[in-house]
Amino acid sequence: MPRGRFISLEGGEGVGKSTQARRLAAALQRRGLDVVLTREPGGSEGAEAIRGLLLSGAADRWTIRSEALLFAAARADHVARTIRPALEAGQWVICDRFLDSSRAYQGVGGVLADADILALHDVGSEGLLPDRTLLLRLPLGESSARASLRDEGEADRIGGRETMFHRAVAEAFERFADAEPARFHRIDADGTPEDVEARLCAALADWLV
Amino acid sequence: MPRGRFISLEGGEGVGKSTQARRLAAALQRRGLDVVLTREPGGSEGAEAIRGLLLSGAADRWTIRSEALLFAAARADHVARTIRPALEAGQWVICDRFLDSSRAYQGVGGVLADADILALHDVGSEGLLPDRTLLLRLPLGESSARASLRDEGEADRIGGRETMFHRAVAEAFERFADAEPARFHRIDADGTPEDVEARLCAALADWLV
Repeated sequence: MPRGRFISLEGGEGVGKSTQARRLAAALQRRGLDVVLTREPGGSEGAEAIRGLLLSGAADRWTIRSEALLFAAARADHVARTIRPALEAGQWVICDRFLDSSRAYQGVGGVLADADILALHDVGSEGLLPDRTLLLRLPLGESSARASLRDEGEADRIGGRETMFHRAVAEAFERFADAEPARFHRIDADGTPEDVEARLCAALADWLV
Repeated sequence: MPRGRFISLEGGEGVGKSTQARRLAAALQRRGLDVVLTREPGGSEGAEAIRGLLLSGAADRWTIRSEALLFAAARADHVARTIRPALEAGQWVICDRFLDSSRAYQGVGGVLADADILALHDVGSEGLLPDRTLLLRLPLGESSARASLRDEGEADRIGGRETMFHRAVAEAFERFADAEPARFHRIDADGTPEDVEARLCAALADWLV
């Protein structure tokens, strides 16, 4: 049994990651692939329990340092219990957010260096990286507008932060993509869902022949 | 206002750490010191919530890696919200278990190196170390007997592990004390509670003149 492929979808709020993760999973299944669709924070029983701690309570419930450790703990459980077993069974794993979201979000503000976030990932998940990371991008004004159209009930601590923050996150993703051009593929998230899905599939074309 | 002193009590199960932490706090208060008595995992609101995740559920609920990250997350909250503010206010902090318990317990079995645990502490708590660590020691047979005398209701995931494990933990504490003789003071935990309390106070005598 060949090892499966590990694909992460990344990007700021409102770029359509969750919708496109579902569409991509369905598209790969139509091609006969065995696909596991998962998301962070969460994706395993322990990680979902930690997600509950992370996304509830006041905005200042956790310091940046504690928050980074909790995300890394949730990711370690998700990797050990869901992602690695699926890859070893030959399944393709599509993950809505992964390590790069921690690097982008917890890295804002300069309390933690990128090397700190990577050190937590090394200890927690033995440094597992996606085989390919699809970075969904919209002009910043447009993604903010889409995010604010969402039902209030979906807003949470992470989603409630402000424009400067979103700009810093978007810039961080661009830096990561520049630094790892073999892993990252930039995807234009503008247009219809069908358009974007077609671009995602094109970015995996070398694996789908 | 001079910074307070940070004292941790360490040792395996059944050596009397919690009892002696309370006695030591009372003894220091009788000398007119402003004392904060705390314990790990826990000691702040966020850390107690994480403690709930750590000490409930099946023995294999968490992998070693996730467990280490959760302990580090709880400690980061405890340090930021309880310990550092108290020290800065000139209070003496007595902590029942701290970093060295993570090094001793999560280090058993060789999945994580001591450097891994220290790396998590560097990111989470900026590497804060106690000013003095009082290591309570009993012959291994005696501490096991004391631990097994406890009410079953107090047994938890961490407490339920077996003799080989306790031996490895005790040996780890000895290695840490050998490596940092200025921070660690070894305390004979045999005898009456009054005897042991007197030894703890003697180990702080240079601060109490």
